[in-house]
Amino acid sequence: MVGLVIVSHSENLAKSVVELTSMMAADAKIAPAGGLEDGGFGTSFERIQNAIEEVYSDDGVIVLMDLGSAVMTTEMVIEMMEDRKIAMADCPLVEGTVVASVDAVGGMGFEEIMADLEKVRDMRKL
Amino acid sequence: MVGLVIVSHSENLAKSVVELTSMMAADAKIAPAGGLEDGGFGTSFERIQNAIEEVYSDDGVIVLMDLGSAVMTTEMVIEMMEDRKIAMADCPLVEGTVVASVDAVGGMGFEEIMADLEKVRDMRKL
Repeated sequence: MVGLVIVSHSENLAKSVVELTSMMAADAKIAPAGGLEDGGFGTSFERIQNAIEEVYSDDGVIVLMDLGSAVMTTEMVIEMMEDRKIAMADCPLVEGTVVASVDAVGGMGFEEIMADLEKVRDMRKL
Repeated sequence: MVGLVIVSHSENLAKSVVELTSMMAADAKIAPAGGLEDGGFGTSFERIQNAIEEVYSDDGVIVLMDLGSAVMTTEMVIEMMEDRKIAMADCPLVEGTVVASVDAVGGMGFEEIMADLEKVRDMRKL
């Protein structure tokens, strides 16, 4: 199963997004990587790296991020793991996580889920 | 100042999104309305109503939601308050909240923020 990592500047936000997936995709392989190592606001290279290791398999890992520097820190981690199948998804954090976790539990592959996440931005709520 | 309400199926997620705004828009008037009254997953008419009351002023309130039934419950609450200036924003939850809270603290008005939130969907992270 494709693994998912949720990168946020807030430890609680990353954990809450993971928790939300238990509502509709309880078996997802998903790990939070929120906040700095001391729990403060920011993104931690080490937390992202550990989260990727936790859910990694040959099926790959897709990383979803909240804001600007979350992207930069994630990029640095992925550069260090360049032989692995890891990609960052350019989509809304919560909405993308819901789609990706349902897709992954449903057996969709890495490229299929990445393509599905490209459409999340266009989803309408109203 | 325009008030903001964060509606989510998860109590923790709504609270975490509010907490995230303290990082860049600490003075925002923002209230969480997450989960059912017993704290379980779902959306609560009463919690949404109370959150709107908490941040309401003549400047208006903008409500941001996570998923499907959050929209429906919010619609019911707003129908009951039809003489008030309240709108639902059709945008990604976390990304929209960041934009709206910075806008509101910066003194932008109700219509301006609603227009800004229409653009959030098109923001790219990568």
